Amino acid sequence: MIYEVANVLIKSGMGQQFEQSFLQALPLFKRAAGCKSARLERSVEDLDRYLIVIGWQTLDDHVVGFRTSDDYALWRALVGDFFAAPPLVDHTEVIVSGF
Amino acid sequence: MIYEVANVLIKSGMGQQFEQSFLQALPLFKRAAGCKSARLERSVEDLDRYLIVIGWQTLDDHVVGFRTSDDYALWRALVGDFFAAPPLVDHTEVIVSGF
Repeated sequence: MIYEVANVLIKSGMGQQFEQSFLQALPLFKRAAGCKSARLERSVEDLDRYLIVIGWQTLDDHVVGFRTSDDYALWRALVGDFFAAPPLVDHTEVIVSGF
Repeated sequence: MIYEVANVLIKSGMGQQFEQSFLQALPLFKRAAGCKSARLERSVEDLDRYLIVIGWQTLDDHVVGFRTSDDYALWRALVGDFFAAPPLVDHTEVIVSGF
């Protein structure tokens, strides 16, 4: 299991619309091959900063499968206009799940 | 519920020792007031980069309670030497838990 962790800075004050669009995009992730979870977190310190955390069975499910799919274009069409800068995307795997 | 998300770059090649020290430190979090979860994630792209993700009941449980505790000094003694740079710490809250 791999987590895509995207650091997103949105255009100031567009939070509510961005969150609404994320909700609308959930079916795209639900039907994506290998997609296991989708979560949106907002920074406490800066309400224009978000983390999009998507769980994927494998790295390729994200960077090959999803990114080359028609649904990726739909995803970007839904949320892309809110981004103040290109998202910074990492992938992580859980090493210790303490408690 | 607040997540402390610390971006950590460790000294190259020290991953195994760092992970071992994180495991040793788990009891410090388990007994910290308001601490709900503790997880260590490693970057897939760069094995020297980690996310430490700690769940807290409130922001103050972390930035006031834990950071002024004796256990914080013990935590830093366990893992501080592995850091190649000061960790970058954010706090987030979950806005959408899609699936």
